[in-house]
Amino acid sequence: MRYEEFTIEGRNAVMEAFRAGKTIDKLFVLDGCQDGPVASIKREAKKYGTQIKFVTKERLDQMSETGKHQGVIAYAAAYEYAEVEDMLKLAEEKGEPPFLLLLDNIEDPHNLGAVIRTANLAGAHGVIIPKNRAVGLTAAVARTSAGALNFTPVAKVTNLAKTIEDLKKRGLWFVCADMDGTQMYRLDLKGPIGLVIGSEGEGVGRLVKEKCDFVASIPMKGDIDSLNASVAAGVLAYEIVRQRLMA
Amino acid sequence: MRYEEFTIEGRNAVMEAFRAGKTIDKLFVLDGCQDGPVASIKREAKKYGTQIKFVTKERLDQMSETGKHQGVIAYAAAYEYAEVEDMLKLAEEKGEPPFLLLLDNIEDPHNLGAVIRTANLAGAHGVIIPKNRAVGLTAAVARTSAGALNFTPVAKVTNLAKTIEDLKKRGLWFVCADMDGTQMYRLDLKGPIGLVIGSEGEGVGRLVKEKCDFVASIPMKGDIDSLNASVAAGVLAYEIVRQRLMA
Repeated sequence: MRYEEFTIEGRNAVMEAFRAGKTIDKLFVLDGCQDGPVASIKREAKKYGTQIKFVTKERLDQMSETGKHQGVIAYAAAYEYAEVEDMLKLAEEKGEPPFLLLLDNIEDPHNLGAVIRTANLAGAHGVIIPKNRAVGLTAAVARTSAGALNFTPVAKVTNLAKTIEDLKKRGLWFVCADMDGTQMYRLDLKGPIGLVIGSEGEGVGRLVKEKCDFVASIPMKGDIDSLNASVAAGVLAYEIVRQRLMA
Repeated sequence: MRYEEFTIEGRNAVMEAFRAGKTIDKLFVLDGCQDGPVASIKREAKKYGTQIKFVTKERLDQMSETGKHQGVIAYAAAYEYAEVEDMLKLAEEKGEPPFLLLLDNIEDPHNLGAVIRTANLAGAHGVIIPKNRAVGLTAAVARTSAGALNFTPVAKVTNLAKTIEDLKKRGLWFVCADMDGTQMYRLDLKGPIGLVIGSEGEGVGRLVKEKCDFVASIPMKGDIDSLNASVAAGVLAYEIVRQRLMA
């Protein structure tokens, strides 16, 4: 699978992709371009919550593979996104307490791919990512997920804090990873749970952290600040696996 | 830090690098080139166990930044390697049972960097990699290690199985990761230990696996084959951390 398969160029092609319900992760539009067709595309993008970037003609020319971008290039998701509801159903079907992974602004596609892979093997029922800023399901993510993307549903939500609030009403507990938290071995992580992992630079955002019921820390014995985000997700996810197995 | 800083080109420069004791990860030599200076460089390379690749002139021209490679280009390590002995000393100084990570042919620099980072934070006393086939301490590894390479010693050994044999005589137990092993929670991982992680494609090599005292498995609940190598290393290393903390 090559990334190029998911780049869509030109006004008609991009408009068709939106109309066909294809998930567009990012839309690049020529800065200052205001004509009818481009305005329609921008409206579609806003309707579906697609991130729009206004760029120079030089940038578009550079990105273009066909040389015929007509002022618009879209990055389409390599895979279709799922709904959070699907994940709860999956847990119910398996007769397991829900176990979801939420990623707060993970920007590295290799990390996202590795986390989806971990989610699959740790038996999580899905991965939730926020719509803005974070990386989407690109071909690089699909590749590093080593096939897990075919099995583990990934949902994209507008507001992670709001999603957490909604899921708390459905009986889930939320734990986020942060250095100032309680050592993970001392928390009870056996029930219906959402594990929130932050970006490497900034950790979990304040608004999201405030919604969480617990803050869990991984014991750190070394000289540097933090684990790689996908390694931290793996260590915490497997603490949940351990507690559930030992219960 | 740029990778280019560690590319050494030309006969004199490469020969000087060897004589100065600089660690050369890989030596590229023009195929068929048999004259005196090149033969001397190849002798040095063999003395230090450097991997030699014979390539075409076109390939060397492509790799060259100066345009003056004279038939030899060397990749030098971004950091100096440590000795295994240093790691045992470090453990002794800290009053801890030795805890080493051994990587059997990890080829992805991002994985190696992430493992060194994990080793640092999990309190391991060092990381051992084999001389051949595996990736060395390149700038990409240094970057993904997020500074851990400045604190956690990394040693390169000629024969991993032999190193395991030697360390067993010093009281270490060896556990390798494989799917057919005993569930890691059921193994006693508290003593002086070496944790062996295999490459993603092939796992731990047969000869190395035979030297190990235990084979540990991470519980896998999903549909795909294996975790990302650095995530697997993190999950196993933290099972060792947990057992030592709970002891």
